[in-house]
Amino acid sequence: MNKVVVIGATGTLGKAVAGELKARHEVIEVGATRGAYQVDSTDPASVEKLFREIGKVDAVVTTIGKVHFGPLAEMTVEQFWVGLRDKLMGQINVVLGAHQYVNDSGSFTLTSGILAEEPIRLGASATTVNLALEGFVRGAAIELPRGIRINVVSPTVLEESMEGYAPFFRGFEPVSAKRAAQAYLRSVEGAQTGRVYRVG
Amino acid sequence: MNKVVVIGATGTLGKAVAGELKARHEVIEVGATRGAYQVDSTDPASVEKLFREIGKVDAVVTTIGKVHFGPLAEMTVEQFWVGLRDKLMGQINVVLGAHQYVNDSGSFTLTSGILAEEPIRLGASATTVNLALEGFVRGAAIELPRGIRINVVSPTVLEESMEGYAPFFRGFEPVSAKRAAQAYLRSVEGAQTGRVYRVG
Ligand SMILES: NC(=O)c1ccc[n+]([C@@H]2O[C@H](COP(=O)([O-])OP(=O)(O)OC[C@H]3O[C@@H](n4cnc5c(N)ncnc54)[C@H](OP(=O)(O)O)[C@@H]3O)[C@@H](O)[C@H]2O)c1
Ligand SMILES: NC(=O)c1ccc[n+]([C@@H]2O[C@H](COP(=O)([O-])OP(=O)(O)OC[C@H]3O[C@@H](n4cnc5c(N)ncnc54)[C@H](OP(=O)(O)O)[C@@H]3O)[C@@H](O)[C@H]2O)c1
Repeated sequence: MNKVVVIGATGTLGKAVAGELKARHEVIEVGATRGAYQVDSTDPASVEKLFREIGKVDAVVTTIGKVHFGPLAEMTVEQFWVGLRDKLMGQINVVLGAHQYVNDSGSFTLTSGILAEEPIRLGASATTVNLALEGFVRGAAIELPRGIRINVVSPTVLEESMEGYAPFFRGFEPVSAKRAAQAYLRSVEGAQTGRVYRVG
Repeated sequence: MNKVVVIGATGTLGKAVAGELKARHEVIEVGATRGAYQVDSTDPASVEKLFREIGKVDAVVTTIGKVHFGPLAEMTVEQFWVGLRDKLMGQINVVLGAHQYVNDSGSFTLTSGILAEEPIRLGASATTVNLALEGFVRGAAIELPRGIRINVVSPTVLEESMEGYAPFFRGFEPVSAKRAAQAYLRSVEGAQTGRVYRVG
């Protein structure tokens, strides 16, 4: 029985991840507006406040992150910044701000996505941000102290999101959020670090 | 004979790249403080101004980019932003701001670095930024209009930089800037797009 914080637990993916983790762990569900606790992970002070309230934990999972989708030839610098601020630094802020609150041999599990490997039209910012997260995990894995591990899960598009996303993901085979959630269990309960768990 | 802009042409790597390109091309050398033209590529308005002055070109090469090196456990969010603002967005700003100035079938060639694949202590931000650049190139390659290509060169540490960098790169076999520059020729004069050219 570990104490696991899931930031994004109220979202499509996070709900499934929190649900699967609950079978064996105490899960603290965090959202932006919903959940047991709220945080704005784009704001380091808000992350710090969250962990001061929660205290020591064994694992932190993030299933959060907005990115701007649009044609590259029309994309503004400001639109490009959205994903860097939200999906990328939103998750990195959590690692930089929370590692002192993670017990020895605890773990972080972040979220990237299939666009890291499979670029689509309108998705240049998403591909950038997702690979950046995979780079962060690769770099952080060899530096985190006290045996703390860090991995990232990269799911393909979810069945639950296909209604809105289908036009952008023709021919992509979606997976259920419940199946994607298994990769988070492998990260949290396994022993590896610096891994990208690809689902789908 | 193509018209090639090299942003960073006054630096250790860029000097060699510009030198090799000059054998067959008209090279416009750009720096922050030196060179024939100056730009601050972290500022989109400065990039826009540079290309309004230079006009149409066949290829744009960037050999620029600062990143903060330091222990992850002590890295502040603000330090992490340095690399995102400078090395990552400094180069992306050039692509977003200059693609209208690139002739049909022209090219962009950006610079990442070996830390994308080989993390080192103090280098988590560099690994993040370098993979982000590789993601950007992967995403942008399928969207750039008019046959414009985009690639990224990822050199290992340069012989010319070993004096300062050696303690961080024990056992890494350095290459000369002249050898790294060959990869830029392959990108500018070749026909591929979305490629990472690794040197070393
Ligand atoms: N859905 C897919 O098909 C899919 C596939 C691959 C990867 N992904 C990735 O998985 C992640 C989650 O996607 P999703 O579809 O589950 O999104 P979602 O349903 O929109 O859920 C987003 C979650 O993040 C929380 N949140 C929003 N802004 C926040 C902030 N500033 N600070 C902290 N938490 C914040 C939300 O809280 P509230 O509910 O309280 O607002 C919610 O729990 C994204 O990075 C996405 O790219 C998704
Ligand atoms: N050196 C290596 O061993 C090595 C290995 C792999 C990858 N890299 C990468 O290669 C790139 C260049 O490295 P380097 O060692 O050649 O660096 P460098 O010698 O410090 O040269 C930097 C260049 O960028 C220019 N510059 C600085 N700030 C700028 C700005 N805001 N806007 C536009 N231009 C700017 C400088 O102009 P001024 O001269 O006018 O100031 C100079 O031309 C970096 O991304 C680095 O990570 C280097």
